[in-house]
Amino acid sequence: MHDAIEVISAKRDHGELTDSQIDWVIRAYTDGVVAEEQMAALNMAILLNGMSRREIARWTAAMIATGERLDFSGLSRPTADKHSTGGVGDKITLPLAPLVAACGVAVPQLSGRGLGHTGGTLDKLEAIPGWRAALTNEEMLAQLEEVGAVICAAGSGLAPADRKLYALRDVTGTVESIPLIASSIMSKKIAEGTGALVLDVKVGTGAFMKSLPQAQELARTMVDLGADAGVRTVALLTDMSTPLGRTAGNALEVAESVEVLAGGGPADVVELTLALAREMLAGAGVDDVDPADRLADGSAMDVWRRMVAAQGGDPGAPLSVAAEQHVVTASAGGVLTRLDAMAVGLAAWRLGAGRERKEDPVQAGAGVEWHKRPGDPVAAGDRLLTLHTDTPERFERALAALEDGYDVTPTAPGSAGFAATPLILDRIS
Amino acid sequence: MHDAIEVISAKRDHGELTDSQIDWVIRAYTDGVVAEEQMAALNMAILLNGMSRREIARWTAAMIATGERLDFSGLSRPTADKHSTGGVGDKITLPLAPLVAACGVAVPQLSGRGLGHTGGTLDKLEAIPGWRAALTNEEMLAQLEEVGAVICAAGSGLAPADRKLYALRDVTGTVESIPLIASSIMSKKIAEGTGALVLDVKVGTGAFMKSLPQAQELARTMVDLGADAGVRTVALLTDMSTPLGRTAGNALEVAESVEVLAGGGPADVVELTLALAREMLAGAGVDDVDPADRLADGSAMDVWRRMVAAQGGDPGAPLSVAAEQHVVTASAGGVLTRLDAMAVGLAAWRLGAGRERKEDPVQAGAGVEWHKRPGDPVAAGDRLLTLHTDTPERFERALAALEDGYDVTPTAPGSAGFAATPLILDRIS
Repeated sequence: MHDAIEVISAKRDHGELTDSQIDWVIRAYTDGVVAEEQMAALNMAILLNGMSRREIARWTAAMIATGERLDFSGLSRPTADKHSTGGVGDKITLPLAPLVAACGVAVPQLSGRGLGHTGGTLDKLEAIPGWRAALTNEEMLAQLEEVGAVICAAGSGLAPADRKLYALRDVTGTVESIPLIASSIMSKKIAEGTGALVLDVKVGTGAFMKSLPQAQELARTMVDLGADAGVRTVALLTDMSTPLGRTAGNALEVAESVEVLAGGGPADVVELTLALAREMLAGAGVDDVDPADRLADGSAMDVWRRMVAAQGGDPGAPLSVAAEQHVVTASAGGVLTRLDAMAVGLAAWRLGAGRERKEDPVQAGAGVEWHKRPGDPVAAGDRLLTLHTDTPERFERALAALEDGYDVTPTAPGSAGFAATPLILDRIS
Repeated sequence: MHDAIEVISAKRDHGELTDSQIDWVIRAYTDGVVAEEQMAALNMAILLNGMSRREIARWTAAMIATGERLDFSGLSRPTADKHSTGGVGDKITLPLAPLVAACGVAVPQLSGRGLGHTGGTLDKLEAIPGWRAALTNEEMLAQLEEVGAVICAAGSGLAPADRKLYALRDVTGTVESIPLIASSIMSKKIAEGTGALVLDVKVGTGAFMKSLPQAQELARTMVDLGADAGVRTVALLTDMSTPLGRTAGNALEVAESVEVLAGGGPADVVELTLALAREMLAGAGVDDVDPADRLADGSAMDVWRRMVAAQGGDPGAPLSVAAEQHVVTASAGGVLTRLDAMAVGLAAWRLGAGRERKEDPVQAGAGVEWHKRPGDPVAAGDRLLTLHTDTPERFERALAALEDGYDVTPTAPGSAGFAATPLILDRIS
């Protein structure tokens, strides 16, 4: 009916793929009929020649059709999910899921592990003694009904075509395609069956999308895909030039998240958690609850503790602390005018918080803590950064990553001072 | 030193590859370090984003460096070779090689087999009882010295990267790239070590290049590659809308070639053979011989017989005749205004003259014979075509290929008549 060269040639020659061609090529690739090298050529043609809104929607639907779909319609509450495109110090899922659940909306948060300089939500939660990421679909549904929130590993049954395709794109230089990124993310979210979806699209040096127009295009593509599939979808575009909060690492970020749930925590993490929570509640049709009240009254913390315990974790157990610390101090005074998210992410990764290959373990206690944020005054000798690792031979490469990662600018008489970037840059719905 | 994603990304992002990147990626692909899917993505990026003259020259040199190079400098005569990009009824190599040898220039003609609708020179010669295509380098050199002409299979030692790359391009929709086509052809011709090279770049429905500008670009790219590598190279662009001569097939084309060598044969085959011979002689620095004289005096035929015999063939043996024939006659009179090369090539292929898979055998006697050429007057009931095959169940699909393959136009009073296309359309040096 179709063959690989026909489909590749159509896209290579700037054509639009038909629904039938897309359905065939995704199915045949999943089944091993279309070879890896053929899909690689097609991916490069898509990356360079693009896809129309119709093609992207069909590509996404075809990937969903290769696997199972979850169904949350039997739950007593509406559902809402959040997806972040990945940032440094981005622990938002941890306080957000229990907070939204405390407001009466079920949160099925299927998450991944970290690869590269951005951390993984599952890696962070695994810093809690006893906590396990793998749940069956039945366990997940039961926990959603009883606790209201679940953060667990995405099962292998959702969009298996996407998993195979993602591994291929990773080794063939075809990751950087907005149609392919958008369909990869949305195929899993649509198959998961959430009623509402909020996307946190990161922009800046520490994010995959370096510029606002790129990020806007990705957000628009994903919001359209959600709408076409009947999922109420909205995207916030948020700054990732500066890392979020005060820490990047696994146990370090759990501790910071617990502070937020206790009513404290860094202002930017609280701001973004509340903004995303309000979007999720609106998407789920719940408009009579202010999530700030649920942080203040401790009910979000209650859900967190029940959620951790339901997956075998001890919410009261002490968290791992790395064996070794290294402190970086300011050599001169002034104002911290820049703290680069990519530099911090790379340093945390090199300290052992992330992995180089999928099969590598991570260190629970490793990471970077920053004591100043852009805009803060700095005196000579002040602590700027603390590096944490169990393996001190890693300090050198982590420090190298941080070398050009921040600026302390002398406060000149009459200088204009530091202009803060807003955290939330745009909203697309 | 380099890695595949770096090289792929550079070309994907419209960059120029460095010499070092090209050398590395060709070597690493040949050695299996760069995977097929990575090379497929790179090929698609090259197809869509192009390569500069420097990149194409380096890509070609890198492919040559993966294998051996032949050396004809010890021969007592200069060498010249011809390459055709492939056409229907293109038997020119058969009379050309002995003709040029009869003029004092050695012709090392490393050839291939047919795949698809264009015939293969080796398949044609194998229609001669006893003839064998495989020679060692030593046998080839000895025959060149003694007979002056050799047509044999290209050994596996020349540009092995190209063989691997060609097989990959064939299944990934990345054949149609001028830089990749040009480097594939020229890597083998340069590695072969010929002093002069004449390219016959076919243009028209039966050729790979359908339009003159495309063919000119391919010819210019190959001529530049030859010049950069020290091979005196010239290209003739010749028409392939109409098939060459009067037959397409294996034994059928050998018989037609022998007619040319005997001083007869179709006018277009004689014209092109002489034009290419004159270019080869000029490239080899021989300007005091008219090849037409060597056809007329029988010396080209002498070399043909010695060349065939040196490779085990019996030049006097009767050629195979197909078991079954089917004649197509004209239903009405007029003028034959079109005979489509692609239709004839497809029909010959379906009759058994070509192969569908590399490992298929071919029928020596199968093929198509056309009794009229465009411009010839036709009376109702005249024979137009004779189809030959050993397997008459093939007639139906061959006739289907020919259905829209020719036009007989009634001669209207006052009509402008038939305008012939010139055979040689351009010359690029």
